[in-house]
Amino acid sequence: MDKSELLRLLNNVAAGEITPESAADILRAAPFEELGFAKPDHHRGIRQGAGEVIFGAGKTAEQMLKIAQSLLSGGQKRVLITRLSREKFELLQNKIDIEYYETAKIGIIGGLPKDKTESEILIITAGTSDIPVAEEAAVTAEFLGNSVKRIYDVGVAGIHRLLAHRNDIMQARVIIAAAGMEGALASVVGGLADCPVIAVPTSVGYGASFGGLSALLSMLNSCASGVTVVNIDNGFGAAYTASMINKKGNV
Amino acid sequence: MDKSELLRLLNNVAAGEITPESAADILRAAPFEELGFAKPDHHRGIRQGAGEVIFGAGKTAEQMLKIAQSLLSGGQKRVLITRLSREKFELLQNKIDIEYYETAKIGIIGGLPKDKTESEILIITAGTSDIPVAEEAAVTAEFLGNSVKRIYDVGVAGIHRLLAHRNDIMQARVIIAAAGMEGALASVVGGLADCPVIAVPTSVGYGASFGGLSALLSMLNSCASGVTVVNIDNGFGAAYTASMINKKGNV
Amino acid sequence: MDKSELLRLLNNVAAGEITPESAADILRAAPFEELGFAKPDHHRGIRQGAGEVIFGAGKTAEQMLKIAQSLLSGGQKRVLITRLSREKFELLQNKIDIEYYETAKIGIIGGLPKDKTESEILIITAGTSDIPVAEEAAVTAEFLGNSVKRIYDVGVAGIHRLLAHRNDIMQARVIIAAAGMEGALASVVGGLADCPVIAVPTSVGYGASFGGLSALLSMLNSCASGVTVVNIDNGFGAAYTASMINKKGNV
Amino acid sequence: MDKSELLRLLNNVAAGEITPESAADILRAAPFEELGFAKPDHHRGIRQGAGEVIFGAGKTAEQMLKIAQSLLSGGQKRVLITRLSREKFELLQNKIDIEYYETAKIGIIGGLPKDKTESEILIITAGTSDIPVAEEAAVTAEFLGNSVKRIYDVGVAGIHRLLAHRNDIMQARVIIAAAGMEGALASVVGGLADCPVIAVPTSVGYGASFGGLSALLSMLNSCASGVTVVNIDNGFGAAYTASMINKKGNV
Amino acid sequence: MDKSELLRLLNNVAAGEITPESAADILRAAPFEELGFAKPDHHRGIRQGAGEVIFGAGKTAEQMLKIAQSLLSGGQKRVLITRLSREKFELLQNKIDIEYYETAKIGIIGGLPKDKTESEILIITAGTSDIPVAEEAAVTAEFLGNSVKRIYDVGVAGIHRLLAHRNDIMQARVIIAAAGMEGALASVVGGLADCPVIAVPTSVGYGASFGGLSALLSMLNSCASGVTVVNIDNGFGAAYTASMINKKGNV
Amino acid sequence: MDKSELLRLLNNVAAGEITPESAADILRAAPFEELGFAKPDHHRGIRQGAGEVIFGAGKTAEQMLKIAQSLLSGGQKRVLITRLSREKFELLQNKIDIEYYETAKIGIIGGLPKDKTESEILIITAGTSDIPVAEEAAVTAEFLGNSVKRIYDVGVAGIHRLLAHRNDIMQARVIIAAAGMEGALASVVGGLADCPVIAVPTSVGYGASFGGLSALLSMLNSCASGVTVVNIDNGFGAAYTASMINKKGNV
Amino acid sequence: MDKSELLRLLNNVAAGEITPESAADILRAAPFEELGFAKPDHHRGIRQGAGEVIFGAGKTAEQMLKIAQSLLSGGQKRVLITRLSREKFELLQNKIDIEYYETAKIGIIGGLPKDKTESEILIITAGTSDIPVAEEAAVTAEFLGNSVKRIYDVGVAGIHRLLAHRNDIMQARVIIAAAGMEGALASVVGGLADCPVIAVPTSVGYGASFGGLSALLSMLNSCASGVTVVNIDNGFGAAYTASMINKKGNV
Amino acid sequence: MDKSELLRLLNNVAAGEITPESAADILRAAPFEELGFAKPDHHRGIRQGAGEVIFGAGKTAEQMLKIAQSLLSGGQKRVLITRLSREKFELLQNKIDIEYYETAKIGIIGGLPKDKTESEILIITAGTSDIPVAEEAAVTAEFLGNSVKRIYDVGVAGIHRLLAHRNDIMQARVIIAAAGMEGALASVVGGLADCPVIAVPTSVGYGASFGGLSALLSMLNSCASGVTVVNIDNGFGAAYTASMINKKGNV
Repeated sequence: MDKSELLRLLNNVAAGEITPESAADILRAAPFEELGFAKPDHHRGIRQGAGEVIFGAGKTAEQMLKIAQSLLSGGQKRVLITRLSREKFELLQNKIDIEYYETAKIGIIGGLPKDKTESEILIITAGTSDIPVAEEAAVTAEFLGNSVKRIYDVGVAGIHRLLAHRNDIMQARVIIAAAGMEGALASVVGGLADCPVIAVPTSVGYGASFGGLSALLSMLNSCASGVTVVNIDNGFGAAYTASMINKKGNV
Repeated sequence: MDKSELLRLLNNVAAGEITPESAADILRAAPFEELGFAKPDHHRGIRQGAGEVIFGAGKTAEQMLKIAQSLLSGGQKRVLITRLSREKFELLQNKIDIEYYETAKIGIIGGLPKDKTESEILIITAGTSDIPVAEEAAVTAEFLGNSVKRIYDVGVAGIHRLLAHRNDIMQARVIIAAAGMEGALASVVGGLADCPVIAVPTSVGYGASFGGLSALLSMLNSCASGVTVVNIDNGFGAAYTASMINKKGNV
Repeated sequence: MDKSELLRLLNNVAAGEITPESAADILRAAPFEELGFAKPDHHRGIRQGAGEVIFGAGKTAEQMLKIAQSLLSGGQKRVLITRLSREKFELLQNKIDIEYYETAKIGIIGGLPKDKTESEILIITAGTSDIPVAEEAAVTAEFLGNSVKRIYDVGVAGIHRLLAHRNDIMQARVIIAAAGMEGALASVVGGLADCPVIAVPTSVGYGASFGGLSALLSMLNSCASGVTVVNIDNGFGAAYTASMINKKGNV
Repeated sequence: MDKSELLRLLNNVAAGEITPESAADILRAAPFEELGFAKPDHHRGIRQGAGEVIFGAGKTAEQMLKIAQSLLSGGQKRVLITRLSREKFELLQNKIDIEYYETAKIGIIGGLPKDKTESEILIITAGTSDIPVAEEAAVTAEFLGNSVKRIYDVGVAGIHRLLAHRNDIMQARVIIAAAGMEGALASVVGGLADCPVIAVPTSVGYGASFGGLSALLSMLNSCASGVTVVNIDNGFGAAYTASMINKKGNV
Repeated sequence: MDKSELLRLLNNVAAGEITPESAADILRAAPFEELGFAKPDHHRGIRQGAGEVIFGAGKTAEQMLKIAQSLLSGGQKRVLITRLSREKFELLQNKIDIEYYETAKIGIIGGLPKDKTESEILIITAGTSDIPVAEEAAVTAEFLGNSVKRIYDVGVAGIHRLLAHRNDIMQARVIIAAAGMEGALASVVGGLADCPVIAVPTSVGYGASFGGLSALLSMLNSCASGVTVVNIDNGFGAAYTASMINKKGNV
Repeated sequence: MDKSELLRLLNNVAAGEITPESAADILRAAPFEELGFAKPDHHRGIRQGAGEVIFGAGKTAEQMLKIAQSLLSGGQKRVLITRLSREKFELLQNKIDIEYYETAKIGIIGGLPKDKTESEILIITAGTSDIPVAEEAAVTAEFLGNSVKRIYDVGVAGIHRLLAHRNDIMQARVIIAAAGMEGALASVVGGLADCPVIAVPTSVGYGASFGGLSALLSMLNSCASGVTVVNIDNGFGAAYTASMINKKGNV
Repeated sequence: MDKSELLRLLNNVAAGEITPESAADILRAAPFEELGFAKPDHHRGIRQGAGEVIFGAGKTAEQMLKIAQSLLSGGQKRVLITRLSREKFELLQNKIDIEYYETAKIGIIGGLPKDKTESEILIITAGTSDIPVAEEAAVTAEFLGNSVKRIYDVGVAGIHRLLAHRNDIMQARVIIAAAGMEGALASVVGGLADCPVIAVPTSVGYGASFGGLSALLSMLNSCASGVTVVNIDNGFGAAYTASMINKKGNV
Repeated sequence: MDKSELLRLLNNVAAGEITPESAADILRAAPFEELGFAKPDHHRGIRQGAGEVIFGAGKTAEQMLKIAQSLLSGGQKRVLITRLSREKFELLQNKIDIEYYETAKIGIIGGLPKDKTESEILIITAGTSDIPVAEEAAVTAEFLGNSVKRIYDVGVAGIHRLLAHRNDIMQARVIIAAAGMEGALASVVGGLADCPVIAVPTSVGYGASFGGLSALLSMLNSCASGVTVVNIDNGFGAAYTASMINKKGNV
């Protein structure tokens, strides 16, 4: 049940076309299933026909398997698992058909969709250490049906390397910029770009980077307009919003 | 000179259609003008024909006037001044035709554009104290040519008040959610909405709100997908990104 | 010796019914016993006939055993050990009859009481990762003689899942709400409930959750009345206060 | 419309006894009234017949007057305004019959209720500078129909002064403990009391008290069971929860 | 060379009784010896005839051995090593005659002095988990020639346990109070005592104790006069100052 | 009633030499007096015959006057008021005979004691801006009967200025070192001195001094033994402890 | 007496060419003069013949006048006063011949030196609000005998404006880069420059800039080599180090 | 391609001496090489003929090898790898000729340069635990062609040890001062020196040192002029800037 269906249901109740009891039954039964320890939510994330997401950190392979099976039996075609360690992936692949993206720490059941958007999401990183976060974003974006273009290791300390990609930046529809340390990439890209830039601070750095705090504050204070920020290392969240933006323009 | 023009120029140099000296002259002369204390940037912000923005905090009325005049003489049709105190507005209006939006602390020279987008930017606040930040966002969005719908004082502690607006939320193209204190509004709205939600933490609160830090952290940690965050009290920045998103879908 | 006994003793001294020497002897000898490394306190926590609590973190199995034996020989019927690792539990069970609650990391000597309160303590979590903290609260509450109702994984990003339980929330006598990340659950539940809500921030999250700080600040700044807060991950403390409130209404 | 009424309405819809349209109409119209800048909520806070609360900080006298009039015309018998400065009180009293509690910075329209609970809420402060916060709690509690007992300036550095009140503490049904600086009062009182202690950190102090942060952390880390915490200087919130607890036992 | 000797030397130079060259030679050669990686300082710490201290954290057994040997060959009778792990102790005891105090994580070469002060240093802890820090203080104090009295596990949540020791507290010459969590012990002891109280915050606790920060702030903000504070877990530093105070009164 | 008297009383009760009722009467009545808003404590601070202290911040002149009068009528010979603004001093001097120390922001009723200790408390500051805090310490120390020696503006950036006073430092019985900014003074003095050094961080500085936090952390982490720390700007507290130490050695 | 003179004196003592008494007399008397509240230091800062600096914040006009007169009578030719408010300047100019640099908040007695270095110190700011800090640096540098080149308002969000100055940046001997908000300027300039870049975070910004903390952390984490950092708003300190570097290359 | 070459190229384009296409080709192709995961930058760091730097933390041995080979094939004579663990060094040395500096955690391919500057960089540490950071600086400085003088373990708590080296400090051209804990070394050295002091806070310490934050704040607030600061533990960065300064004076 996606959100427009939910709205329709609520309006049907309001319009008297369905009894509240039935509505309540539908509302309670349909959208999530009781597993005891978790309530997989069929309308939490992603449109029917696309897929559903499991946040893998802190879940056992057993728990992830049960949630995935519940989702698939509920009609999902594909499932994405983020923050999936290699160890747990190896436990899972004995039980279910799953692909593993090592750098991104993502597992995908049901494969990537074949139809992709024409326009691309541009993903840029400041350094090589930011790549795992960028890949979490990239694979998520592809799972959600987007074309993705990656430009990695173009931090602002070598500004000519970044400017060599100015055409890509100036023509993008939406950009994800991942950087740790001082996080200045977001401001420079934001100044060049004419589209929304989603900044992802990464926990890359040491000392006074305080686990990503430095990059986070830097990005929140960006002097460039059009920059918004997600949590430290949250590649998934950046891709989710970027996909919403990218798809609006496509349809 | 907007960004596509800039790109064209750079490519023309690369294509040999213009000499680098001329390009350098154009690049240096055209886009900004030396005022001694500031370099108004004709391509920093907003497309030609739309307008330009002055961040008023910490500038004297005299300085703002000079920048505005430089922009207008450079071909801008309208100028937006944020964080404009009533005192400085009163000094300005003796010298130039300017409208003042008291709650938003915004001054506009040249009026709001008449053409507006069909789709609306939805702006929601948790409490009445968040309204000034929301109005900074709303007036900025209107200045940038967007239709705006306001829903104020619907914080999550009275969830039925928020749910009464579920239709607006579920059908929105882009939402700005402004909240101080615990900032929970962003998560609840993010869970209902099927579009990007730009969360603006406000400095409303006392004690352990630490000047907006509590709401900021809350929004960055939102468990709802599709939520990105701007700086505390940054209504302008939220509106700028929202406008980018809203307009993509319109054209 | 519970607190009313202590008060009676002090008043007896004041009333001359007992010599101060005897009182001092009673005061010094009775309520706690010298083990060298710890002073088990027979009136610190819990009414006679109920039980006593050992905070297991940082104590060896040997130390916990000695304290437990001292308490049992002092007349306690049952002992609760919190933050008990499986390793230490396994050492303990060779020496004493003890039950282990894995998720809650709690060991109980002497079993749960059979008499329970009629009214229930409602325990709600935002996600599945908050369950260990919630179970620490739940098992503690049961140890203290309360009936408990659990509603897990109903975070605010899927508000309809939470609202499906509105009857339970609106009719509760006292609620424990455990959430990490942005901790918004406490505000929404607090807005629906007509009873005290004890909010437990959990250390669930990453990046800018800063080990539970985000949820902690969020809950302290809750815009809903009736919400009070305990330390991060302090399920025991939440249950202890909830039990006090629940039992007042029962007797 | 109080919460049990709301629940009844929702269940009536579910039971088919009222059409959803009517329910929606009731739900939308009744509980709050549109004033443009605020939505006074008739079921946000307090049971019908008791009263409603306005958080005065950041509202103009004009705004407070309108909200109060809306509430009174909606059937409220009395209205409490917190964080009301003397200046705004003086503006208000020209327009409406209102009493001012200077130390508590509280204004009350409609007077205090005559019926009071038999059992008392005990309010304790560490120093004289904590009294304004304690009075905010005390007057709020009285407004909500509770009997209140005040014990002020009994900080732990003079432990005999606190112990002189041990009878009151040991026999209380619920205690509010307000303290700034190191906030140790909550732990000592929590150790003596056999009832819930609601700790209110105050911003009293200087230097490393960091505006109340020291007391806040201290109270959250209290080694005494039964202590929960509210925001810095939040006397109102402490009283609101204390009243819920006190009244449960009375009825 | 102790500090009075150093002063005498400097004054001799000033008085012309020794040539500056000789003084410079003495000054450079005598007080420390070059080991390449460290400069053991014969007047850094402790009076001749007493001993010298090595901060063991982050030094290899090899390095500690060399420093100790340099000190002993320089005339020291005994050497104290703090933060000495059992592993390194076991390496050391193959090479040199050394005693190990397990709880205190202290190794002593040359044994404890036989002469002790008549007056005692009183060392108090709030809980059992604070004992390692207290023992670092206790063994250090004994190494420096002080008599020590230990009172452990008398936290303020069970105030009668602390008051049972009121005679010891009121008659002490100097007190060390070690506590984690909310650190309230220092204030209560400071209020009872008539002598300097050296407060040692410990890193005991979890969640919002933030590794001892809560106790540290609490102790710095103590409302009791006569309380000073050392670094988190710094039992050695507390004992060093306490010894200075205790010995002043003895001689 | 000083602390030894209090102890004697408690022991008398224990010895049966006084009835508990009388003891309770003495205990309740004697040591503090009810003023409604404050409980002046005759044994909180200072020995009979010396004086009592009022913390002036946040008290009205009226309140301070009443407390002072209560203390004087209770037998105190002199009263010290800290953090007393000139405005409030001027109000006070119309009502009572009081001397004002402008730099220290201290008022003294009853004059300084004539008998002083032979040994001196040495008070050192890093800069001229630290002098107000140092003077709060100096006047307090004199009020408590100590001789005081002041050495001001000898920060470590001009180490020869500090070393010019090495004789004073090396021979001192107790030292108070006040410094803002980086607070390095405490470590250098601590390294030279052979006596307790009480470090007072001051809020002098800007930017990353964060209101004294930099100096506070610096002093807590001092690599010199014998250094303990009080709250930021707490000259009074430093002097109080210093006096305890200085006087022990005198008697 | 500059530092080489001081060294010569100390070596003379070591070489027996001067008695220690005389040396001590010279050392004590010459370099600083007792004013009671301050010790102007003739070798603290600046070479003989150049000048001396007074940190004006928190000093009265009276105090600054006395220190300046002491310095001038000690042979200084010129005196620089930083953080001098216009009010205090106006008091000073009645007593002494002094020039005021309004934006820099600097007063100079004795004028700027006529001889300047051939090479320039380049001073760059991100925005117009950073200019006051940059001017403090610029005027200080000129006072110390340096040529200065200013490039203001070239923040990274408009990267072409900054790149228009690439020749100046690439050829500089030393650069001062002042920026608030996200402080990204330092990294981009550091990446372009082949000389030391001294980064000055400014307190410009709002919300999560936390008074300059964001820019400070950003600059400390700069991914560009050759960047070092001074305190927030410390234009003076940046200029002082820049002058040292600039002059090394000149002589 | 070093920076002056880059500048020459850009100016050639501006002067029409080279076509922009060729320039673009040179600019894109020459300076960095695509390895897929990283873009080794031939002008990022160090002059041609000197060498290039790889930040080893978080890179696999495989990745470092590829980057190094790319650099060497691009004409670099030597490569420096920082933060290289012994494990990864051992993997590397099977594939390439590399020297390992254990304490500095640095690997060098191609050896140290034979020509060294006449003037020395002076590197000072407060304690022995700061030596690894100091060695990272020392080996980097030598790699960059500088002579280095090391003075270790001369913290300010034993000021005579530091002063014994006053000649070195007063005559230095540039100093690196590494210290953890309270970081006071920078201020004392800064006060003695007549040259730039680059302060490196180290993460040495415990408790309230908060991983180097204490030393960092201390150094930023240094009261000595001429002190600038780099990130915590950033020995490389300090050496890089020191080398720039040292070499300016040499050529």
